[in-house]
Amino acid sequence: MAKLPYRETAEGLDAAFVGVPIDTGTSNRPGARFGPRQIRAESAMLRAYNSGTRAAPYESLMVADIGDINVNLYDLKDTCRRIREGYRKIVATGCVPLTMGGDHTIAYPILQAVAEKHGPVGLIHVDAHADTSDTVLGEKIGHGTPFRRCVEEGLLDCKRVAQIGLRGTGYSPDSYEWSRAQGFRVVQVEECWFKSLAPLMVEIRAQMGSGPVYLSFDIDALDPGFAPGTGTPEIAGLTTIQGVEIVRGCRGLNLVGCDLVEVSPPYDTTGNTALTAANLLFEMMCVLPKTKYYSSLETTK
Amino acid sequence: MAKLPYRETAEGLDAAFVGVPIDTGTSNRPGARFGPRQIRAESAMLRAYNSGTRAAPYESLMVADIGDINVNLYDLKDTCRRIREGYRKIVATGCVPLTMGGDHTIAYPILQAVAEKHGPVGLIHVDAHADTSDTVLGEKIGHGTPFRRCVEEGLLDCKRVAQIGLRGTGYSPDSYEWSRAQGFRVVQVEECWFKSLAPLMVEIRAQMGSGPVYLSFDIDALDPGFAPGTGTPEIAGLTTIQGVEIVRGCRGLNLVGCDLVEVSPPYDTTGNTALTAANLLFEMMCVLPKTKYYSSLETTK
Amino acid sequence: MAKLPYRETAEGLDAAFVGVPIDTGTSNRPGARFGPRQIRAESAMLRAYNSGTRAAPYESLMVADIGDINVNLYDLKDTCRRIREGYRKIVATGCVPLTMGGDHTIAYPILQAVAEKHGPVGLIHVDAHADTSDTVLGEKIGHGTPFRRCVEEGLLDCKRVAQIGLRGTGYSPDSYEWSRAQGFRVVQVEECWFKSLAPLMVEIRAQMGSGPVYLSFDIDALDPGFAPGTGTPEIAGLTTIQGVEIVRGCRGLNLVGCDLVEVSPPYDTTGNTALTAANLLFEMMCVLPKTKYYSSLETTK
Amino acid sequence: MAKLPYRETAEGLDAAFVGVPIDTGTSNRPGARFGPRQIRAESAMLRAYNSGTRAAPYESLMVADIGDINVNLYDLKDTCRRIREGYRKIVATGCVPLTMGGDHTIAYPILQAVAEKHGPVGLIHVDAHADTSDTVLGEKIGHGTPFRRCVEEGLLDCKRVAQIGLRGTGYSPDSYEWSRAQGFRVVQVEECWFKSLAPLMVEIRAQMGSGPVYLSFDIDALDPGFAPGTGTPEIAGLTTIQGVEIVRGCRGLNLVGCDLVEVSPPYDTTGNTALTAANLLFEMMCVLPKTKYYSSLETTK
Amino acid sequence: MAKLPYRETAEGLDAAFVGVPIDTGTSNRPGARFGPRQIRAESAMLRAYNSGTRAAPYESLMVADIGDINVNLYDLKDTCRRIREGYRKIVATGCVPLTMGGDHTIAYPILQAVAEKHGPVGLIHVDAHADTSDTVLGEKIGHGTPFRRCVEEGLLDCKRVAQIGLRGTGYSPDSYEWSRAQGFRVVQVEECWFKSLAPLMVEIRAQMGSGPVYLSFDIDALDPGFAPGTGTPEIAGLTTIQGVEIVRGCRGLNLVGCDLVEVSPPYDTTGNTALTAANLLFEMMCVLPKTKYYSSLETTK
Amino acid sequence: MAKLPYRETAEGLDAAFVGVPIDTGTSNRPGARFGPRQIRAESAMLRAYNSGTRAAPYESLMVADIGDINVNLYDLKDTCRRIREGYRKIVATGCVPLTMGGDHTIAYPILQAVAEKHGPVGLIHVDAHADTSDTVLGEKIGHGTPFRRCVEEGLLDCKRVAQIGLRGTGYSPDSYEWSRAQGFRVVQVEECWFKSLAPLMVEIRAQMGSGPVYLSFDIDALDPGFAPGTGTPEIAGLTTIQGVEIVRGCRGLNLVGCDLVEVSPPYDTTGNTALTAANLLFEMMCVLPKTKYYSSLETTK
Repeated sequence: MAKLPYRETAEGLDAAFVGVPIDTGTSNRPGARFGPRQIRAESAMLRAYNSGTRAAPYESLMVADIGDINVNLYDLKDTCRRIREGYRKIVATGCVPLTMGGDHTIAYPILQAVAEKHGPVGLIHVDAHADTSDTVLGEKIGHGTPFRRCVEEGLLDCKRVAQIGLRGTGYSPDSYEWSRAQGFRVVQVEECWFKSLAPLMVEIRAQMGSGPVYLSFDIDALDPGFAPGTGTPEIAGLTTIQGVEIVRGCRGLNLVGCDLVEVSPPYDTTGNTALTAANLLFEMMCVLPKTKYYSSLETTK
Repeated sequence: MAKLPYRETAEGLDAAFVGVPIDTGTSNRPGARFGPRQIRAESAMLRAYNSGTRAAPYESLMVADIGDINVNLYDLKDTCRRIREGYRKIVATGCVPLTMGGDHTIAYPILQAVAEKHGPVGLIHVDAHADTSDTVLGEKIGHGTPFRRCVEEGLLDCKRVAQIGLRGTGYSPDSYEWSRAQGFRVVQVEECWFKSLAPLMVEIRAQMGSGPVYLSFDIDALDPGFAPGTGTPEIAGLTTIQGVEIVRGCRGLNLVGCDLVEVSPPYDTTGNTALTAANLLFEMMCVLPKTKYYSSLETTK
Repeated sequence: MAKLPYRETAEGLDAAFVGVPIDTGTSNRPGARFGPRQIRAESAMLRAYNSGTRAAPYESLMVADIGDINVNLYDLKDTCRRIREGYRKIVATGCVPLTMGGDHTIAYPILQAVAEKHGPVGLIHVDAHADTSDTVLGEKIGHGTPFRRCVEEGLLDCKRVAQIGLRGTGYSPDSYEWSRAQGFRVVQVEECWFKSLAPLMVEIRAQMGSGPVYLSFDIDALDPGFAPGTGTPEIAGLTTIQGVEIVRGCRGLNLVGCDLVEVSPPYDTTGNTALTAANLLFEMMCVLPKTKYYSSLETTK
Repeated sequence: MAKLPYRETAEGLDAAFVGVPIDTGTSNRPGARFGPRQIRAESAMLRAYNSGTRAAPYESLMVADIGDINVNLYDLKDTCRRIREGYRKIVATGCVPLTMGGDHTIAYPILQAVAEKHGPVGLIHVDAHADTSDTVLGEKIGHGTPFRRCVEEGLLDCKRVAQIGLRGTGYSPDSYEWSRAQGFRVVQVEECWFKSLAPLMVEIRAQMGSGPVYLSFDIDALDPGFAPGTGTPEIAGLTTIQGVEIVRGCRGLNLVGCDLVEVSPPYDTTGNTALTAANLLFEMMCVLPKTKYYSSLETTK
Repeated sequence: MAKLPYRETAEGLDAAFVGVPIDTGTSNRPGARFGPRQIRAESAMLRAYNSGTRAAPYESLMVADIGDINVNLYDLKDTCRRIREGYRKIVATGCVPLTMGGDHTIAYPILQAVAEKHGPVGLIHVDAHADTSDTVLGEKIGHGTPFRRCVEEGLLDCKRVAQIGLRGTGYSPDSYEWSRAQGFRVVQVEECWFKSLAPLMVEIRAQMGSGPVYLSFDIDALDPGFAPGTGTPEIAGLTTIQGVEIVRGCRGLNLVGCDLVEVSPPYDTTGNTALTAANLLFEMMCVLPKTKYYSSLETTK
Repeated sequence: MAKLPYRETAEGLDAAFVGVPIDTGTSNRPGARFGPRQIRAESAMLRAYNSGTRAAPYESLMVADIGDINVNLYDLKDTCRRIREGYRKIVATGCVPLTMGGDHTIAYPILQAVAEKHGPVGLIHVDAHADTSDTVLGEKIGHGTPFRRCVEEGLLDCKRVAQIGLRGTGYSPDSYEWSRAQGFRVVQVEECWFKSLAPLMVEIRAQMGSGPVYLSFDIDALDPGFAPGTGTPEIAGLTTIQGVEIVRGCRGLNLVGCDLVEVSPPYDTTGNTALTAANLLFEMMCVLPKTKYYSSLETTK
């Protein structure tokens, strides 16, 4: 990832890129198992500094790519166990994981490991879908259910959960009723159209406070015009600019983990979905608590 | 379409999806003959409720897919006759046709059948092109002429016609002079840039009043960044969001028919153009007069 | 180009489309050598009038396509010499060159020829990258260095230089420090998000004054959602609409040359990048000093 | 499929096309879950007669498309159970199933149902891979193991098993040792290069005798030049012509079931893999025991 | 084409490349209207000599590209009239037309013009389909009927007609009965599998004798593995090598015209179908009666 | 490559995969600079044993991937110097380099290093083009000239040079005259059509004798139906099977180096060209002098 050195473990790192190459939690188009490989390939274009924000992540953070979790493509529950155990080791070292999915199922075992260390966390969940179903195709574990499971297990601090970008057709008149009932802030995509999300992020930062926060970004939050390479695209989504604003808007939060999921290379005919994912992961690294910023006295005229 | 049952006829239906698989009215890139097939395939992702508007179309409407009009690929005039006769039967039952094109030529014979039943109709025409030429390549019938023919035959209530999204290079200094001369409201794309079209739709609804209205949506109204799979793309077009706003803005009108035309699958390398078309057709169904809506007391914070 | 006649030379022309088919200045993805061929192919859809602005370029300008510069793919320095000499002949006739690249290296020898005739020129540089590095991969001549070389040789009137759309990761904390130190106006992309650039162009026109101005437009200034077919895409860029606004905003300036560079057909899976380039070149022709405009009394309601 | 009528059950049919849309048994590239949908779409070009062999299947057979097995994408073992039960019902009626996969895992539960009715069957297995591993990624059920499981359960008459087209890199020096040890005839692809397989099929027919035979055709048996749209392509494979010869060479056998598996539409950029699959399924129908043939006195000069 | 000069007319030429850009005779996938443009683009790689046969066409023939016939996309019959008249002028000068299609309908009006000058001609027809239907979709003129029309009008010397490569599913038990009844030699593709067609061409040359011969080559004669970019692909076809052998096997015949039809660029994802067409057209030029050949004493060991 | 460990140097290795990522020697379509990256990605499917030949390379050879040569994209001559020096170090250790190109220019500096160690070598050159021009576009160094340069510098034992697969259009009546004049054996592709190349390889092995031999394989030797992803495709080429036969036919030779060049990923729409390259490189490793083979008593019946 980003031409960073490869390391066997997270020991001694401030942050680490980790791949979780599965798509067996997918109900529609598969392919996300190749997400980590493709994101790494497209990340070859990333340079060391963030021209927009003047972040200099490599001057203050020890970062490496620690490879992929060794998943079991034939047993999703066993895969969840492997992810949970892998992330336990990562977070135990104090390293912040920056995850490349894989389908969204993986957020559940990752949050199990994260909450085991940090207690219930705040969650900024950027997605076209709420992923709070009780079951998908009759199963409890899948890419439509992770945040339901997390709530049931007390992994989330529900007052500090925000879901941004929700839209599309649904299975009931109010697809987001359950979310609201838990105390989540639900930001349907209609609230986001035609405007900067910087003001929204001011509110989100206030909601999150100083406690630990996890950022989970499903690439299908973005409009398929910008990110076609995903399994369940929904039209009329966020622009890439809004996606960048959301991540930059996390600066100052106590981020303890981030993921970028659901990139499906077989449907990414131009490679731009993976390119976008690589850049968003870079932006995530740039808002980690310890990252150094250069002053920007004269950045804008 | 949308995993709906297939029916032989429109009898007993409130609305029906109909395919008109032609592209022989096309002057540039062909392929729209496969539009209905591809839109149906991509519609497999549609669920029953509209999360954005809380419309529940299937709770109040009898809807089915009644298949394709049996066109004649070698004789465009005969095809027009077949379309007209097919639609006569559909509208005779009181069913509202939701048409999947095919190229834009088809709007002409459809409007013949619609106006025969309802009298001159209002028209909301969303498109990059005015489609009001007298002839295309020397021919009276083609995808650049349907609305000229409709005016000549008195099918439109010209004061209740709006054309939205017009742009591109043209054959004369004012490509839209004829439209204005008929009393059409012409909304060039420059009027639409950077803003919500909800206010525009307030005006359009006032213009349309309570009379019968037909909605004709050429997918090339959208920017080719969002809808590349079409025959005559023009840059700097509407966003998908604006397309959705236009359709949602038709709620409350007396819609007697809708079409979505010019999807050309051979040029739709990601499948997203057909996906967008399928969603827009779903949104059209959601604004038909009889559709039930759930209240949305708390939809936005 | 645009179905215009082919001419051997620029003699007697007001403006001429010229191809410069190289990509040997490219540090990342190649392919721009086929840019001119593909832009010409997609330009087949251009008609004679600009519906948006009512410009009628062919009623007031003698324009032709004068073919490609005969480049040397194995020697970039020799290629620069050939370009410079070719453009000397073109500008000597008073003809304004409208260049189809090719990678951005070509702006340097073109500006040598242009400044030789007109003296130091103003520059409107639309791009994701500043292209002001001292060296790229250790070399002085390449697609990341042209404007550094131009400044060193005094080809630019530095107070009349604007760079619009800059963004992405960089090699130092302030990627645009050198530009600002020269007196350039730097408009990072964050300044452009979510809004019309018409107001910006008012300022840019004031900055440019009445002196000679060169417009250099790198297609990667646009977001990869709109223009994927380029060598070094950067996310969160300009929309196509903003690109059109920038070009239209040049109306009234004393334009002495324009280029559109970095279209890479192998990465342009839908053809829309070349289509966009063809349209932008048409818009450039429409803002040349002598172009005739029809009044637009009633263009917008 | 092939524009045949859709039927709810196999009752009264001589043969039925059945889809089994899974890829959760796949160890490498997924996508075969969309195989049935794509094969049906491409089958639209099939006409009623076989010009090469003069078979007239629809004059002697009752055939229909009976839709897809309702699989469980989250539980492969449960999916196998559903397939087995679905096929029990199909074969109970005397109908011959012509299966569209889906990945090769499905051959195992299909053969359970088939052998339950017919006893141990002969097998003509056309594939790049033997699919006789004991486990794949540690699991007993997957697309690399079906024929091992079939042997263990006594579903195959091992002396009447032939595997044709095997090749590629393997996990041990002799990848086909286990097959030979069971008494299978192993025809490595090297035996097939540069020649007609008609003589081979004479031998295979002799090997099969008059007992019940199942034909299982993995599209990756064909060279990726002809069938790129599959999950585990191996170079230097069979030509499409040889594939047709194998199927035609089954004429006269007591075929009790056929499948065509591993078509992966996301990797089928031209659609030709699905087209080839549709044609091979048509050829399979043409060699079913009851199919009528017209004499071909003068077919070849 | 082939970087040859463009000429307005055929006057003074020995041979001329001509484009006929239609696909309105197509019953299935359209796109052939862009065939001439794409074949010309891919022909840029052609050099002056034939390394395989040592033909030096440009040393003995005056050849040019004379552009496209001005077709009417909205009226196929009128298009046929325009083609016939255009070719009358070409053949009147003694020039041999090398036609780039366009769909196969065009062979009919071309042969009208050719036979008007030369009397009934021999025909070498290379194709997957016989194209001898009485009607297609109820119409007399279309890409499935040209040779039926030619026979009815006495344009062919039926004893000197050969059809090579026929295959696929058909509408009757013997799709080629009508052809045989006229005295055509029918070479079904099964006769061609696995072998050189040089011996066949010895027989064909004998059949053709010294009279005038027209060569009509539908790119779908080739297997879709080699030529996917066509409207009605049929599997198990000729190899490109066999296609080259057929054309080279025409050396010595009195060729009075050649065409290469049915290249459909929207389905030619790699560009290789157009590349193949360009090369076959070059090979056709190399076997025209006047072409000079260098001796090849030691060409093969 | 092939999931092998990465090593910094060739020290202690029997063979090493090396990437040379350039395309600046290319005269037509670029993209080969990404060849090594794509070949490595597709090599993920390679397993440890060769099922066809029972070679077990990893049981007898120490092999690793030693990364890419650090090339200079802006100076082809300097790149050649860097390649030569890099390979000097590799061959000095006794390691056999297995090179992933990159364009064919690289064969020249590689052979300089190889011949410096081994003296003039035999050469098996598999290609569509002879690559023996004196200059390309006026330059001495490029992908059309490497073997001319090698002969001039005495790097080849000309009686032990064979060129296989040559074809296409050329710049003179006998494109291969110069090759024959040096004593090369020239095998034009026509000699290869429709048959196994095993007999040819018996002769080639006799020609090569026991001296050191270098194998240079340009992927464009294969037909574009099998390997579309290359810069200068020529129709009617070798099949992949023949390519495999050529490499397998090198078993027993004293191979001192191998390369596989001209894979251009932007033109490899299915990924199969890179997949084919990865397999051919594996086959090359399998015929290195020290590779262990298992007996194959019963491999074929």
